[in-house]
Amino acid sequence: MGMRPRIAIDAMGGDEGARIMVAGAALARHRHEGFQFLFVGDETRIREALKNHPNLNAASEILHADDIVSADAKPSQALRSSKKTSMGMAVNAVKIGEVSAAVSAGNTGALMAISKLALRTMPGIDRPALAALLPTMKDSDVVMLDLGANAECDSRNLVQFAVMGAAYSRIMHGFEKPLVKLLNIGTEDAKGTGTIQGAAQALYQADGLAMNFQGFTEADKISTGDVDVIVTDGFSGNIALKALEGTARFVTDLLRRSFLSSLRSKIGFLISRPATEMLRNHLDPNNHNGAVFLGLNGVVVKSHGSADEKGVANAVEVAARLVEDSILERISQDLAKIGPLEVAEAAAK
Amino acid sequence: MGMRPRIAIDAMGGDEGARIMVAGAALARHRHEGFQFLFVGDETRIREALKNHPNLNAASEILHADDIVSADAKPSQALRSSKKTSMGMAVNAVKIGEVSAAVSAGNTGALMAISKLALRTMPGIDRPALAALLPTMKDSDVVMLDLGANAECDSRNLVQFAVMGAAYSRIMHGFEKPLVKLLNIGTEDAKGTGTIQGAAQALYQADGLAMNFQGFTEADKISTGDVDVIVTDGFSGNIALKALEGTARFVTDLLRRSFLSSLRSKIGFLISRPATEMLRNHLDPNNHNGAVFLGLNGVVVKSHGSADEKGVANAVEVAARLVEDSILERISQDLAKIGPLEVAEAAAK
Repeated sequence: MGMRPRIAIDAMGGDEGARIMVAGAALARHRHEGFQFLFVGDETRIREALKNHPNLNAASEILHADDIVSADAKPSQALRSSKKTSMGMAVNAVKIGEVSAAVSAGNTGALMAISKLALRTMPGIDRPALAALLPTMKDSDVVMLDLGANAECDSRNLVQFAVMGAAYSRIMHGFEKPLVKLLNIGTEDAKGTGTIQGAAQALYQADGLAMNFQGFTEADKISTGDVDVIVTDGFSGNIALKALEGTARFVTDLLRRSFLSSLRSKIGFLISRPATEMLRNHLDPNNHNGAVFLGLNGVVVKSHGSADEKGVANAVEVAARLVEDSILERISQDLAKIGPLEVAEAAAK
Repeated sequence: MGMRPRIAIDAMGGDEGARIMVAGAALARHRHEGFQFLFVGDETRIREALKNHPNLNAASEILHADDIVSADAKPSQALRSSKKTSMGMAVNAVKIGEVSAAVSAGNTGALMAISKLALRTMPGIDRPALAALLPTMKDSDVVMLDLGANAECDSRNLVQFAVMGAAYSRIMHGFEKPLVKLLNIGTEDAKGTGTIQGAAQALYQADGLAMNFQGFTEADKISTGDVDVIVTDGFSGNIALKALEGTARFVTDLLRRSFLSSLRSKIGFLISRPATEMLRNHLDPNNHNGAVFLGLNGVVVKSHGSADEKGVANAVEVAARLVEDSILERISQDLAKIGPLEVAEAAAK
């Protein structure tokens, strides 16, 4: 088992900054007394926010940062100023071993670039990937990666994403051999690009993987909960994720509009409010908050910019869970077990 | 204006075959008296189905076909047997000018392969694309292409898809210069692959296009209705389309489950049923049925395999509309207007 988690919180990222980030940490600590925090950012604002959360007194330190990474900063700009930004200093605290993980609700591209440069990719991993848990019809969420870190991927990247996603799933779901599939535009062997077919061949042939690899799945199956880990390149993953988010919003907006369309429907809505609340709760992004950069020498979790304190607490708990359950060692062990994988692009059939 | 539409109907495709295809044609003819049909397939079954629709008597001919394309046939198999299958003979009727369009609810890959070989791509088009109308929050649907005909595309393909999608939108929406965007993983200029950036540069630079090209959009904006035409490669398009379908089903299933969770919610549901019916109607795939293969020398429309008679009627009407409004000439004129486009892959930034 890993260490007791001490987590750096970039207190300045996200739509609301320090107030929400500190409140989220406080909520997480209510549930987990062992959590320790290093809040990074404007000291005055952090102190102000901490006043409302006496349960954090014994568990917090502050690391003052003069600057912040703006929401529209390019990754290259963010890298140049990273020594004095709250995001850069939070990730650096992971690098120098002062904390075991960092959580930020700031600019995703900047966080990726800073984390990659500071922490470097793990041995055996060519590129890190962004992974998240998405809601399904079943009780357990599905792990999906890459969600946008790499717009273009080769077969080898996809195989490594599968190994990382399976390790993440084992920790979050507790399954010994999670069911892993590659996202494709059909389930027949000949479907899709040579890149995907090459990855599938390598995963079928590999021995000793701590996963149950079962070929291809399609994007309309993401939410059914039949698969534990869905692997894809960052372009398709980002498209799928945003299509899911957009459609969930679209359908719930339509529903709201329909309910408001007549007095009868309004009354029905009031009576059935517990049902629509249940729906809202199931889809609430705050209940699935915390996307993880996998494949780096350190744990970095991205909280959604608009997450509320419940969402931030969730992101903090994901970070702590990955530290406690030693995600990095698990990925390393898996990579070592399978040895150098023969991965080649297959010719598209 | 084009000709009076005479449409070949592959009577054997789809989950239910002749009964639904004939019923759909009958429904379309109730609304458009000029429609004429050539039903292709098993003569006995078609005659049987026609008995229920006397309004088709004066408007129908039958072309007997011995064979059908099975739902799981590979495109190569379907091509080999196309001379005697209902699908192959329906498309051939377009080729020889006996009808002005074909509608099939059969195997999509097979229909694409057969149509491509029989009708060939239009001058100036390298590859045909599959386009469809998707529901949005606004009154008008959005045209999206390619939805899966081409798993890999270059910049030139995307530019041609934009021209074809705009022509389709002008006919279906009636806008003179539809708003066209490329699907990407961000809206900043530097986002995405070199392929997408190359297409964007060519579309920005082109003069005289009958569209208003405005760069990039993301998958969570597909359903907002702010864009008239969304252009993407067949892999991403298929992922986005299936993610939309899957999520719409997921959310409505969750809603149903929530409504059934207590007596109070059940009562609320009964009272607000007009609202949920309104939602169901807005999302009903039958109201948006009819995907079109654009870029061929002929009009071929794919009806959803599980479409009901309303859905088939919609697909028939889409086919008729494209014929009456001369989609092929419109695409040709646009291509001629812009001349040979300079399209190069851009290096990803």
